[in-house]
Amino acid sequence: MHKLTRQLQVKNNSKIVMLVADGLGGLPQQPGGLTELETANTPNLDALAKQGVCGGSIPVKPGISPGSGPGHLGLFGYDPLEYLIGRGALEATGIGFELQEGDVAIRCNFCTLDADGNITDRRAGRIPSEQSAPLAIKLREVSIPGIQVFVEPVKEHRFVIVFRGEGLGGNMADTDPQATGVPPLKPQATHPDSQKTAEVAEEFVRQACELLADQQAANACTLRGVSPKPNPPSYEEVYGLRAAAIAVYPMYKGLARLVGMDILGEAQTLDQQMAVLEENWDKYDFFFIHFKYTDSTGEDGNFEAKVKKTEEVDACVPRIMALGPDVFICTGDHSTPAMLSGHSWHPVPTLLVAKHCRTDRCESFGEAECLQGGLGQFEAKYLMPLALANAGRLAKFGA
Amino acid sequence: MHKLTRQLQVKNNSKIVMLVADGLGGLPQQPGGLTELETANTPNLDALAKQGVCGGSIPVKPGISPGSGPGHLGLFGYDPLEYLIGRGALEATGIGFELQEGDVAIRCNFCTLDADGNITDRRAGRIPSEQSAPLAIKLREVSIPGIQVFVEPVKEHRFVIVFRGEGLGGNMADTDPQATGVPPLKPQATHPDSQKTAEVAEEFVRQACELLADQQAANACTLRGVSPKPNPPSYEEVYGLRAAAIAVYPMYKGLARLVGMDILGEAQTLDQQMAVLEENWDKYDFFFIHFKYTDSTGEDGNFEAKVKKTEEVDACVPRIMALGPDVFICTGDHSTPAMLSGHSWHPVPTLLVAKHCRTDRCESFGEAECLQGGLGQFEAKYLMPLALANAGRLAKFGA
Repeated sequence: MHKLTRQLQVKNNSKIVMLVADGLGGLPQQPGGLTELETANTPNLDALAKQGVCGGSIPVKPGISPGSGPGHLGLFGYDPLEYLIGRGALEATGIGFELQEGDVAIRCNFCTLDADGNITDRRAGRIPSEQSAPLAIKLREVSIPGIQVFVEPVKEHRFVIVFRGEGLGGNMADTDPQATGVPPLKPQATHPDSQKTAEVAEEFVRQACELLADQQAANACTLRGVSPKPNPPSYEEVYGLRAAAIAVYPMYKGLARLVGMDILGEAQTLDQQMAVLEENWDKYDFFFIHFKYTDSTGEDGNFEAKVKKTEEVDACVPRIMALGPDVFICTGDHSTPAMLSGHSWHPVPTLLVAKHCRTDRCESFGEAECLQGGLGQFEAKYLMPLALANAGRLAKFGA
Repeated sequence: MHKLTRQLQVKNNSKIVMLVADGLGGLPQQPGGLTELETANTPNLDALAKQGVCGGSIPVKPGISPGSGPGHLGLFGYDPLEYLIGRGALEATGIGFELQEGDVAIRCNFCTLDADGNITDRRAGRIPSEQSAPLAIKLREVSIPGIQVFVEPVKEHRFVIVFRGEGLGGNMADTDPQATGVPPLKPQATHPDSQKTAEVAEEFVRQACELLADQQAANACTLRGVSPKPNPPSYEEVYGLRAAAIAVYPMYKGLARLVGMDILGEAQTLDQQMAVLEENWDKYDFFFIHFKYTDSTGEDGNFEAKVKKTEEVDACVPRIMALGPDVFICTGDHSTPAMLSGHSWHPVPTLLVAKHCRTDRCESFGEAECLQGGLGQFEAKYLMPLALANAGRLAKFGA
């Protein structure tokens, strides 16, 4: 698709807003019941569903439940099976670390070794964050010639390291043996381009163990999910869009940054996000607005709370529409039904409003109603081309 | 998709049943009328349609009418455009011949040659099976050093041979010139790996003509559809499922065996198939149940008979549901509308029932009703990932 959008892209003054309610799709609490979205009182989205065109977004492929990475890449129009984000890179992104070209990011676990060097606890007793964060910061003392080493605490036994320097590849095996009673594995390159990475990793682990020698629980570490900075082409390149993200959580800022969006403001609430949108309205063509709490309440299995959070999303819609976007989209990166307390594979209710969208018979915004929508069921990666088309930003293909 | 299902597969104790009514989809007898399935009295499937989620399965791609091979491979989740089954291999499979790795299977026709060695009848006067079967068996006398030669009668002028031995490739051109008044073509390898196959074939034909020299009609043979054993990965590999097939006809047992399913029982009726299912319920994760007669009555152009056979399918459903499958699917490998007396390209009504399937507004099981179903229209190859997801057998993709 990007070959097409690169070739056909047209510049104009249109504005596109994509409002992503994370984990928007849901399930009824009992057979024949209503989903979270269908239960929520959403007069603004319902009115837009009448006016616009609806459908069901399949995040990756039928049956596949995506994480946040592939879920958002799909919405951004990047085939999530083609653009893979390594676990280390995603973890770094999630804590707001700005990866540079050539960086190698690695997820690490503190672990416990016995006197013989065998692992007795792969998670160092799930050491609490208050204890593990200072230890991660202590590991910044590791010094490796020619390599910048960044160490960032994450949570409990988890932290992230990033190696920056010449000639580092991202092809290195995990050192976690996934078992106790054996020592951590030695860092091994899985491709010759990563020989130096393995050497650097070995030296890091050696010095880390020295620095942690006096610890009871967290006296060593294992390395996992070694990965380079993902390198998708930018929104400017593939769509010709000056794009901006208005998000609260570092993960979503990071994902937006990966595709070249500017990160706007320091908003902590949806109201503040709306203010940031209004302030920056003239400066960008495309705005990605991320709302986390429809997902987190779903993850908590809290149907009622997800209903409430969905209503908060609805309440912010008039402020967006008052700005007069040429294309307004409301969708989610995946479903997070409270009934499942987790991400699921179900298609995500999706709404697109634009002057020439060709409306359908949907009377409100919800899972069942979207089944009769004019967008049908479609893979998420096609949403951006639809947005561009509705914004008059795609020329005719062929003569 | 198999790369994903291999990576994401999760083991649990769930049970999946896929009930395939061959050729299930149909057409009304006159515009505005009902299809065979819509005409049939199917209270059990209708109740499940209310409870589950429906849609239309596109066997291969829109507009493509598949044979049994690609139709079933699609349902089994194997891209039918990627996994091709050669005609010789399908014919051998269809008569229950168990192909081994390295075998080469060939469809053969008895034909009639005149005194000059030119073909006068490409099908030996469509010689009846009672006469052709003993001739095929006589050809088992052919002896080729280092090669095991299997000859199996099929029907009328058709029989199958299988060569087993070292170094046999499946790349050999047909010897049927598709014309009379000319001699059969000499066996020719189309790739160097099949030089030996062509030599063996030439020797087979030479000896066969000697053995058939006293025959008036069937005094020679032509070779077509040369093909190796297809080698799709197994259900165990790609899905982590212990899978079993309960079928009556050799073709469907053969197709199931190709993807590593165990073939259970010797059932001749749907009732007996249900008994086999019940007996083996604890031993497998996945059951493929095949019912042939919705297709054969469709092929016969007998609308009423197909309606009756569809009702037989419905009647067996309570015995399946009594076992409490976690995921129950009813579909077909393609449509066989009685109005067309043959396979067609129309999407096949499909029903999936599972606890978290997210139901839709379908009130009964039929072509028109499935159009508003929550599965939408989907390629058959996505049915298995959906089944796995609904069975809780797929982990999240990406973080």
